[in-house]
Amino acid sequence: MKSKKNSIVPKNKSSLRSRLQCLKEKLSAESLDACLIDSPLDLLYYTDLKLSAGYLIVSRQSASLFVDGRYIQMAKEKAPMQTFLEAPGSLERFLKEENVKKMVFDSSRVSYDQFIRLKKRGKPIGIQLVPDALFFQALRAVKDVEEIEKMRRSAQLAYKGFVFIRGILKVGITEQEVARKFEVFCLSQGAEKLSFEPIIAFGANSAMPHYRPQQVPLKSGDIVLIDIGVVVDQYHSDMTRVLFFQKQDVFFKHIYEVVLRAQKAALAKCSPGVAVEQLDFAARKIMHTAKLEPHFLHSLGHGIGLETHEYPRLKSQGKDARVHLEPGMVVTVEPGLYFQGRGGIRYEDTVIVTESGYENLYPEMDNAVLIVKSPRGQ
Amino acid sequence: MKSKKNSIVPKNKSSLRSRLQCLKEKLSAESLDACLIDSPLDLLYYTDLKLSAGYLIVSRQSASLFVDGRYIQMAKEKAPMQTFLEAPGSLERFLKEENVKKMVFDSSRVSYDQFIRLKKRGKPIGIQLVPDALFFQALRAVKDVEEIEKMRRSAQLAYKGFVFIRGILKVGITEQEVARKFEVFCLSQGAEKLSFEPIIAFGANSAMPHYRPQQVPLKSGDIVLIDIGVVVDQYHSDMTRVLFFQKQDVFFKHIYEVVLRAQKAALAKCSPGVAVEQLDFAARKIMHTAKLEPHFLHSLGHGIGLETHEYPRLKSQGKDARVHLEPGMVVTVEPGLYFQGRGGIRYEDTVIVTESGYENLYPEMDNAVLIVKSPRGQ
Repeated sequence: MKSKKNSIVPKNKSSLRSRLQCLKEKLSAESLDACLIDSPLDLLYYTDLKLSAGYLIVSRQSASLFVDGRYIQMAKEKAPMQTFLEAPGSLERFLKEENVKKMVFDSSRVSYDQFIRLKKRGKPIGIQLVPDALFFQALRAVKDVEEIEKMRRSAQLAYKGFVFIRGILKVGITEQEVARKFEVFCLSQGAEKLSFEPIIAFGANSAMPHYRPQQVPLKSGDIVLIDIGVVVDQYHSDMTRVLFFQKQDVFFKHIYEVVLRAQKAALAKCSPGVAVEQLDFAARKIMHTAKLEPHFLHSLGHGIGLETHEYPRLKSQGKDARVHLEPGMVVTVEPGLYFQGRGGIRYEDTVIVTESGYENLYPEMDNAVLIVKSPRGQ
Repeated sequence: MKSKKNSIVPKNKSSLRSRLQCLKEKLSAESLDACLIDSPLDLLYYTDLKLSAGYLIVSRQSASLFVDGRYIQMAKEKAPMQTFLEAPGSLERFLKEENVKKMVFDSSRVSYDQFIRLKKRGKPIGIQLVPDALFFQALRAVKDVEEIEKMRRSAQLAYKGFVFIRGILKVGITEQEVARKFEVFCLSQGAEKLSFEPIIAFGANSAMPHYRPQQVPLKSGDIVLIDIGVVVDQYHSDMTRVLFFQKQDVFFKHIYEVVLRAQKAALAKCSPGVAVEQLDFAARKIMHTAKLEPHFLHSLGHGIGLETHEYPRLKSQGKDARVHLEPGMVVTVEPGLYFQGRGGIRYEDTVIVTESGYENLYPEMDNAVLIVKSPRGQ
């Protein structure tokens, strides 16, 4: 989906209209009459409103938003489509008028209870509910110009946060202190919030890919794994760098170099038309040659946008493996190698797929290995 | 569920054990063989681990945690129960060994897709899945001593944040600036994060109960509605106060007094054994007498704990209406009256139900109406 520019309609409205148009075309292409959207992020994507409840029904011809008393005033003023107060029978009436028979819903987000309620409401008017986990995710995978601009700013702030962290490392500072100071810094710099709880892992803790910061003090010779991201204008960023504090272990120097080569090999494959599994294969080939592949414990990366983890997952196994990259997709590329009880290395960039290849949202590290000296020379 | 004290077992372990024990007793009371827990907050409640994936199966006799490669090391080290690497067949084997036939799951959280996957895995071994939205929520409604201590600290910090906001109000400051400064303040004071995006609404914006801060500057005579909360040690707080900036409107002075009387009437009903609908009736009676009840647009309050909105909802309609208060429940009491295009007033406390009544986590306002003068005399 590309942003369609129009000099009369404000840019924002144009984007929303273009997103709804893509949705309607997809309904048509898949022989569906309508879709139900009730996840807050998808509601935001199509209405530009932050709604914690309510739902949007889009048919091939029209779109209608249903909200409760808390949101009705705001929605009536601002939603780019007709808006109704959700009441018994209002949904049914609309579906009947639009002659909807087959309606798709996001089966990965709609709860069992919601499904049962929806089924009960749709039954008397002959609605067939079509579960699909990818229908909506796929529509958000390719970012438009506005979204890319926001993701760029989000990544710039995350990187600023990384530079900030590098500057405060000193003997005795704890993982939790670093995480907290990073958060305060990013908020004061304009982040809405963090994309996720920062992973700040010292020494052997870096061996746990989804580690959470603890009251562990930094000491000389520690690996410092920094996996961070912020939210700017609703868009998430995600990056990982590893630093070596004061001294550097020979074993992990080697591991770092292998991870970096694996990441570069994956990035080299990154261009439109390439299946995401090819990126994973490329990274794994480097690790395999180095006899280290069994230490790669997670997928190579993931789409990113309104959420930190979006479609597609960059893996050579599973349902997304054969998804082909398209211009405008934004994905992370983050190989890692982990050694339980010793430590781990991960290197993560976020890239935009372009017409001819990719654009990296983060600057490259000057050296394969960064030894950080304590600012106070401790 | 009360915390069972034991001088040998560390306090934390004892709490977890007591929570699991309550769960097992509830299984037995409802003739269920086991339950599946996979929401991150329930996993935290029973394991004290932050897991973004994985599931816990508790049968009447035992508990087993299943996690993937990212979490296995941490879980094996720290989980207070046996831990397995999730693999094809591992769940099935466990359920068979435990002779599980009827297994309850949280139907309000488990997605349609997860349900279908679970059904497929359970079918060959004859598992009957029992959907229940309240089973787990009800178990978390009564807080133990440790939880109450955390909620107390969370409320104290939220109130500190309110005092901070009161101190920075001045002509021209925007809702978004206030929200951002509040967030930075709370994080620097030790909050993990905010419970929710703060509602800072100036003037007529206060008429929207779920308003989000905008670039709207404060002016003399504005209502300032402040609905805030923080997370401390995982526990949420929630409070609302309204201030009148420099001047005070006669109409809203009256509305403020009615809301305050309604809140006091609801609190007066707050003690063990009382159905939550009684609190709502008490508040509505005051509003009805003042001919203002149609302007009360939301429920009276809600349980609060690991989430801002927990069971039970304090309403006189719907499924929770007849839930009886028990000592240890923590709920918000927050009547409000809203006038579209003009403004709104809400007053919210969070209270702990005690053996004899309730304990309010927030100090009372000195005056029914607080007129705030700008610190710079603007």
